Amino acid sequence: MRVIYWHVNSLKVVHTQKALKSAEDINEKTKRFENGVVCLISLEEGDQDKENLFEMFYEDLMKYANQINVKKFFLYPYAHLSNNLLKPSLSKELFYSLVKFLKNKGLDVDYGEFGWYKEFKVHVKGHPLAELSRSF
Amino acid sequence: MRVIYWHVNSLKVVHTQKALKSAEDINEKTKRFENGVVCLISLEEGDQDKENLFEMFYEDLMKYANQINVKKFFLYPYAHLSNNLLKPSLSKELFYSLVKFLKNKGLDVDYGEFGWYKEFKVHVKGHPLAELSRSF
Repeated sequence: MRVIYWHVNSLKVVHTQKALKSAEDINEKTKRFENGVVCLISLEEGDQDKENLFEMFYEDLMKYANQINVKKFFLYPYAHLSNNLLKPSLSKELFYSLVKFLKNKGLDVDYGEFGWYKEFKVHVKGHPLAELSRSF
Repeated sequence: MRVIYWHVNSLKVVHTQKALKSAEDINEKTKRFENGVVCLISLEEGDQDKENLFEMFYEDLMKYANQINVKKFFLYPYAHLSNNLLKPSLSKELFYSLVKFLKNKGLDVDYGEFGWYKEFKVHVKGHPLAELSRSF
């Protein structure tokens, strides 16, 4: 799993059209998010078999969130961070499981939908910890 | 070299502070760019020895630009796309060489400065070719 963290002032995402037939139908095409961490996430081959993947991600994200004093999170499925992507059917399942896992931890989490093309506007801060990348 | 292409309506970049001591001093801290392709670029170990790297990138970028009818480009040094980054001194040199190479090809190219933390606002389009990733 490869992730980029963005500490943002704001994010607006518009789901424009399905990229995968298997993508969920959605009512809410536009999502807005403010003053939190956006996590761009590429799920990779092998991620489905890693036992502590979600827990490792959660712990790292919490460390980061504490450093920058953030309590809101937006998970953004993002296929452009890896040449070794997990196949879409498994990736979709794993992505939504991760959202659920973080919600069960009590986090304030929103997310972009898997398998949709998205238009987005984002305002990323410019301090030294505003952008980080991780591999899990 | 790993690259993400963004077909954007607009980009505003503010160079906030040096991330590397060796970064260039700059007068123009804020740059604006509209209706073109932003290329997020991670230079990787070994890139300095690839003979046709710039030419391969140029050809791919031209193909893409023709598909989406774009004639303006913004190169954005972006260290978050690889775990195998070229060391900063070489990466900086190669990045500015690439800018020069594309300018010499006659392209309308602007760029973010290497080695600076940057705040940015971007509006990325939502059509199927609006975001792509490449490895060279």
